Amino acid sequence: MEIYLASASPRRRELLDQIGIKYKVRVSGTDENVGLEDPALLVEELSRRKALTVTEELLEEGKTDFIVIGADTVVSCDGKVLGKPAGRADAIRMLGNLSGRSHEVYTGVTVVKKDNAPASALESGELEGSLNINTFHEETKVTFYEMSLSEINEYVDTCDPMDKAGAYGIQGFCARYIKGIEGDYNNVVGLPIGHLYQLLKNL
Amino acid sequence: MEIYLASASPRRRELLDQIGIKYKVRVSGTDENVGLEDPALLVEELSRRKALTVTEELLEEGKTDFIVIGADTVVSCDGKVLGKPAGRADAIRMLGNLSGRSHEVYTGVTVVKKDNAPASALESGELEGSLNINTFHEETKVTFYEMSLSEINEYVDTCDPMDKAGAYGIQGFCARYIKGIEGDYNNVVGLPIGHLYQLLKNL
Repeated sequence: MEIYLASASPRRRELLDQIGIKYKVRVSGTDENVGLEDPALLVEELSRRKALTVTEELLEEGKTDFIVIGADTVVSCDGKVLGKPAGRADAIRMLGNLSGRSHEVYTGVTVVKKDNAPASALESGELEGSLNINTFHEETKVTFYEMSLSEINEYVDTCDPMDKAGAYGIQGFCARYIKGIEGDYNNVVGLPIGHLYQLLKNL
Repeated sequence: MEIYLASASPRRRELLDQIGIKYKVRVSGTDENVGLEDPALLVEELSRRKALTVTEELLEEGKTDFIVIGADTVVSCDGKVLGKPAGRADAIRMLGNLSGRSHEVYTGVTVVKKDNAPASALESGELEGSLNINTFHEETKVTFYEMSLSEINEYVDTCDPMDKAGAYGIQGFCARYIKGIEGDYNNVVGLPIGHLYQLLKNL
């Protein structure tokens, strides 16, 4: 059974490689305006959209027997959702916000499994009904040490923050400033592979 | 000021590289029989011995202006300290013990700083008194999902457990089985680099 990762994130690919799961990357554009403010609902819905868009394409190509994994990660601080920074100033602002305190990271995951039943459901408009769709999220609390303004600038100069939710990557240079976490570390990296593996095993 | 890492562990080297600290590796044999059962005291004492052995060598070579970092990591489960497995059967036993529950990982770190004061302290036998010695430990709680016997065997077959305290590496294949942690992730990998960086900054 082929597994498709509906994400272009190199970090998610590395995590699947790490635990020995074979997959193909298949990314498709998805409308990310979901109008949800709750971070857990937001990442679940976005992961679902990503997975279902790719699922739809695979079904149109006549594929059967496959699994699609969609995922989305955000940072939540003071009840506000932080996505990727819009630019340097935005990254500095976000990191100033996270310095010396705790925030939450949410990753939503949707796993779609299509068995080798006839693919007629798509034609009849019963797309979801014919598929096994599992969605979950994991929440991890992350605590930062204080970062001085010069430390924030030094980190932003590395460009590491620019493509990451909340403007930091826990697995890189920024590990200097991480005091501790509560929950799954890989959830902060972008994919809760422990929970995902347990789900895939049961499927 | 030169920094020496008194450890041969490739994982500790990777962590220092990750946060951009320049160092040299300098390892020396140390008596590891300390007769301590408390894991926190044990790793602190072992980290101290490792750092001081290398410090002594550097002083004998007439070096001034240096920092030495020593570290030691153990797993504690049911009040018993688990070091590296003695062999395959021992690794299987340890993993069976960790499966489906929580344990603690302790890393002790000692940072020795030698300023450019005259190195006469060594000759006069006042080695420690002339140095700035800081020792601390970090404790991280790790929770495993259940592992079946075939999963344990599959993991032991990768040989990943054989050189690691508690017979697992959180950063590798075994991430499949990690439900979550409380504390510093890198402390489980082998070096609490957040805490260490804060200490080095203040030195």
